[in-house]
Amino acid sequence: MKYWQIVETHMKKLDALHHAQNKITYDLETIAPKKSFNQTALTLETLAGLYYEYLTDEHFLYALENTKAENLSTGQKQIVEEYLKEVNRIRKIPLAEYKLFAKLQTQGHSAWISARESNDFSLFAPVLEEIVSYLKRYATYQGYEANPYNALLDIYEPEMQMNDYDQFFGAIREKIVPLLARLKESKILQQTIHAKSLQGTFAKNDQEKLMHFIVNYVGFDFNYGQLGESAHPFSTSFHNEDIRITTRYDLQDVTSSIFSVLHEFGHGIYERNIAADFTQTPLGTGVSMGMHESQSRFYENMIGRTKSFWQPIYPVLQAMFPQPFQDVTLDAFILSINQVQPSLIRVEADELTYPLHIMLRYDLEKLLFSGDIQVRDLPQLWNEKMEEYLGLTPKTVSEGVLQDVHWSQGSFGYFPTYALGSAYAAQFYATMQKKVCVSRELEAGNLNSITSFLSEHIHQFGKSKTPKQIIKDVTGAEFSRSYYIKYLTKKYEQLFLWEQ
Amino acid sequence: MKYWQIVETHMKKLDALHHAQNKITYDLETIAPKKSFNQTALTLETLAGLYYEYLTDEHFLYALENTKAENLSTGQKQIVEEYLKEVNRIRKIPLAEYKLFAKLQTQGHSAWISARESNDFSLFAPVLEEIVSYLKRYATYQGYEANPYNALLDIYEPEMQMNDYDQFFGAIREKIVPLLARLKESKILQQTIHAKSLQGTFAKNDQEKLMHFIVNYVGFDFNYGQLGESAHPFSTSFHNEDIRITTRYDLQDVTSSIFSVLHEFGHGIYERNIAADFTQTPLGTGVSMGMHESQSRFYENMIGRTKSFWQPIYPVLQAMFPQPFQDVTLDAFILSINQVQPSLIRVEADELTYPLHIMLRYDLEKLLFSGDIQVRDLPQLWNEKMEEYLGLTPKTVSEGVLQDVHWSQGSFGYFPTYALGSAYAAQFYATMQKKVCVSRELEAGNLNSITSFLSEHIHQFGKSKTPKQIIKDVTGAEFSRSYYIKYLTKKYEQLFLWEQ
Repeated sequence: MKYWQIVETHMKKLDALHHAQNKITYDLETIAPKKSFNQTALTLETLAGLYYEYLTDEHFLYALENTKAENLSTGQKQIVEEYLKEVNRIRKIPLAEYKLFAKLQTQGHSAWISARESNDFSLFAPVLEEIVSYLKRYATYQGYEANPYNALLDIYEPEMQMNDYDQFFGAIREKIVPLLARLKESKILQQTIHAKSLQGTFAKNDQEKLMHFIVNYVGFDFNYGQLGESAHPFSTSFHNEDIRITTRYDLQDVTSSIFSVLHEFGHGIYERNIAADFTQTPLGTGVSMGMHESQSRFYENMIGRTKSFWQPIYPVLQAMFPQPFQDVTLDAFILSINQVQPSLIRVEADELTYPLHIMLRYDLEKLLFSGDIQVRDLPQLWNEKMEEYLGLTPKTVSEGVLQDVHWSQGSFGYFPTYALGSAYAAQFYATMQKKVCVSRELEAGNLNSITSFLSEHIHQFGKSKTPKQIIKDVTGAEFSRSYYIKYLTKKYEQLFLWEQ
Repeated sequence: MKYWQIVETHMKKLDALHHAQNKITYDLETIAPKKSFNQTALTLETLAGLYYEYLTDEHFLYALENTKAENLSTGQKQIVEEYLKEVNRIRKIPLAEYKLFAKLQTQGHSAWISARESNDFSLFAPVLEEIVSYLKRYATYQGYEANPYNALLDIYEPEMQMNDYDQFFGAIREKIVPLLARLKESKILQQTIHAKSLQGTFAKNDQEKLMHFIVNYVGFDFNYGQLGESAHPFSTSFHNEDIRITTRYDLQDVTSSIFSVLHEFGHGIYERNIAADFTQTPLGTGVSMGMHESQSRFYENMIGRTKSFWQPIYPVLQAMFPQPFQDVTLDAFILSINQVQPSLIRVEADELTYPLHIMLRYDLEKLLFSGDIQVRDLPQLWNEKMEEYLGLTPKTVSEGVLQDVHWSQGSFGYFPTYALGSAYAAQFYATMQKKVCVSRELEAGNLNSITSFLSEHIHQFGKSKTPKQIIKDVTGAEFSRSYYIKYLTKKYEQLFLWEQ
């Protein structure tokens, strides 16, 4: 086991460097003083270099390859495989290119902030062009079929390529657009209290108490986790015994933070429940972005927006915030938090229009990497697609093409996993309902049996199974978009179309 | 400059690893979930190993030594010297011994916690014996004169050895003990409101607001720093643009946190004002423990316990906490926060009895490393010394020999720097008063001229000057204990003995 020991020693170093980068980033996003950013960025740059150095070290690769002759356990073999995949991916990128991309990410992010503030796409376009150009070269280093975009999709969701997504989004479009049209005519929807009328004045202190109550209620263990505050809600973990989720507090709208913490709880509980054997190894994290998003969107939407979930705890919300909830019945509240309304901003979109926002981004990314369009074409095409899918036209680039942070950090191919995650969740949910009476458990305030199902079938495996394997093992079938379409159709028909 | 470039690249890595270790430790002490400790300890162990690996790397040493032929700037030369000193110190410790000590520190700390909780020294003694035994070997690796203890003293305060401390503490004992006896007879002191009667009920929220006000008032810039909460107040910095200080909130006694934040501010402002050229290099930190403590105890005591300091802001305290301060005059408040009263616990001791607590520890550490006493003798000798210096006998080991964390972490030779720091501060204060009218500035709420003096003469240099050089340059003289003795005598005579 001589080579395995080398791998293990090296793994500890890689994991420690990764933990360090993550913790410093977490600190920056939550409590670090504003002006500490520049110097701390130097530290992060150096740590990223060290990580690259250790990951691409020839002795490490040699040891990894030579463990084949050793009698490894299944878990050890999986660790070796995972590293070989990552080492081979990273070694294909020349060091100078690797460093260039890290620099472009920082520059891109700061150019994007300026461009957004000045409502001027041209401030962002030059660095975005460089980012796209690098990513095309990245695709060449890795190899791809048909469109360089496929190499990018592979980073975030292995085994999902353009063909798969084309079919997926095609079907969604075909079903969701008519459903949206039918909802436009719904009298119930027209009579529903607008979500805006749930607004009020919500002191931060009180909101913090409520969020602690809610995440504790759904099963977040504060012995192993912490709820922080940041400009954009996110979650991270340093190992399976240290899970951090964050939220932000909208002083006019308490529901904003409620659905953020439920969303981030879904990410957090996934990382928390990964088997102890895998933590602090490359298998000790969620297997893909889509799988992660399936967990967060499950808790946010399939659990958090149901009447069953709120039945036991709606009185708590009413008691903490008599204004406005005292005069809102539970039924009215549920209709209100599920209201459908085409809007410009993805992160504020309802569950039904959300995938249309994703489709728009997917379409543009595809065209950009096939070379059919250029960076300069993005603002106008964005607006055209927005009109086509949602019937709205942004008045400014800031509420249009510049609204998301992802492209500025070079994350192309990431967006589709958001919609895919919701679809995974719908398929898991269909299976779960055969084994767990979800509504009864929720009404009894028993989240445990729901989380246990996910933990047993999904969470515990970390990266030791592929997404496709997990879906097959949980649901007994291949991934199918039909569950998602059925779920959305049934949900919105039951809420708003039962009179028709 | 070929070798300098190697040194510089290596320096960035060492600094980044150091930043990472510090940030993870800071997180553990402040916001990390309780049960995350065990796994995060593994990360810290690996990072410590990486740091050792990089520091003792032969190519690094070779490059350091070969920079001599290159045309370095003064600052670059100082960096090389500082590294050579540290590299040579660490390379003398065999790797196995280095790792053993890291393990003993963790074990020691947890055994100390158990021993304290069960009030049973025997739970701590075995690991403490191993720690002492390792430190004796450490002294042999480094070389020492007369007593292995000298090698330990050198870690925390370079150029201060037993001979120096013996004279220092001898003189203090000679002057402070009679002063204490005189104070016992003071009618003013007897009539002073006991500090306990300043107690009340102080909501944490309100205390947080007050502490923000106070540290901002004395000059802490929240753009470059943050005030956190931890079980034991401390300060740390990641570079000169990220300073963290912490406090704890005693809900019965607001003065506890007031003096903690003033103390930690002193540490923090030292790190904040280090020249930009030195930050993120080995020169970018306070030069010694004694020098650091001189800054913290200066703000805590020489500034924070004076009438001039409180004159402009006492009304703020009274307004925020009418109970109990509304009925306490400023004069009564000042007497109360300067009350002298022998006590058992070092961290709660007043400014005058404080050095006696340090002397006791110094005496015991000396005897332990000379071999005159053994670990098992500590509890009884502690009580005897306590009776001799302060006239009190602890009832339990927890309020006696087990009260401090330091020994459990292998920090022997550290305590004397606490008293030394106060003495440095007194000498700096004497010089400062010739150039700045401190009381007038304080009464005008102008802390800036005071901090500027310290920044210009002490802070900015980081580790680029030795403590002795700094003292000579600031005060025009060698270090002398007489300033400290004069300061204490004059202060307490003016407060409590003017009727005699």
